[in-house]
Amino acid sequence: MGVITFINFFEYNWQVRDEWFDWCNQLSNEELIKDRTGGVGSILFTLFHIIDVEYSWIRGIQGKEDVVVEFADYDTSEKVKSLSVRFRSEIAEFLKTNLIELKEKVVGVPWDEDKYTVEEILHHLIAHEIHHIGQLSVWSRELELTPVHANFIGRKFKSSHSY
Amino acid sequence: MGVITFINFFEYNWQVRDEWFDWCNQLSNEELIKDRTGGVGSILFTLFHIIDVEYSWIRGIQGKEDVVVEFADYDTSEKVKSLSVRFRSEIAEFLKTNLIELKEKVVGVPWDEDKYTVEEILHHLIAHEIHHIGQLSVWSRELELTPVHANFIGRKFKSSHSY
Repeated sequence: MGVITFINFFEYNWQVRDEWFDWCNQLSNEELIKDRTGGVGSILFTLFHIIDVEYSWIRGIQGKEDVVVEFADYDTSEKVKSLSVRFRSEIAEFLKTNLIELKEKVVGVPWDEDKYTVEEILHHLIAHEIHHIGQLSVWSRELELTPVHANFIGRKFKSSHSY
Repeated sequence: MGVITFINFFEYNWQVRDEWFDWCNQLSNEELIKDRTGGVGSILFTLFHIIDVEYSWIRGIQGKEDVVVEFADYDTSEKVKSLSVRFRSEIAEFLKTNLIELKEKVVGVPWDEDKYTVEEILHHLIAHEIHHIGQLSVWSRELELTPVHANFIGRKFKSSHSY
């Protein structure tokens, strides 16, 4: 059975996310926060939601209290990107720790009545972001814009130390 | 650094894919093959494409010749599902082998001029399917239908031996 490191998927997601922030620069803020069909509603709220969910679960794994962020305070692409940068450095630090020892640990969080292992939660976060990015790609084509390329192969990743 | 097994993500993708086949039953074949904005075009072609790409790369990793399948021969949900079942058993067998030994192996395939490691290709296949499923979820809402739930957490997976 093959084993892989989680970090590759997180680095992929972070790289693609940053490319979506660049992509956002071609649109007005009105278009970015406009309600759309499917997903969580708007392009910018999708990016905010991905970041919020990732950070909340990573804090949950660490037994830290949830930090509630409100979209009303992060309603421009610049603000959401700065939130992403801020949370990411903390997440990258955590992902450098020895997750093998943690992966069977059972975690409970205030926003979910069930408990999950750290391994399940990390899988969830990876799939969660990729899924929502797939939704952005459809909205992009509906706006007659080329979406960010989603391929995993052909990308170069920084070492996690760069984050 | 955490390590995870690839099989969990493949099982997640296969379970979600099967739920999308069930979801397809509420639509006419005309709706399923109708061209839509974004992604690879239609709901059914998306599912066909995911299956084709997964199988082609897994055969490529094994050094086996590519099997070309034409969508014209698989233009109903039943036919695409049967293709998925057929290919999956072969893929599941391969994923049971010791991928740790293989992961650094460099693979070249006829449809891509670059070469990639087995590890990169397996990451690519996992992200590829999740991304396209995200696209289906938007089209589903545009059809005023509830999409298949995409959460990783809260799912029960069969052992890979069941496939």
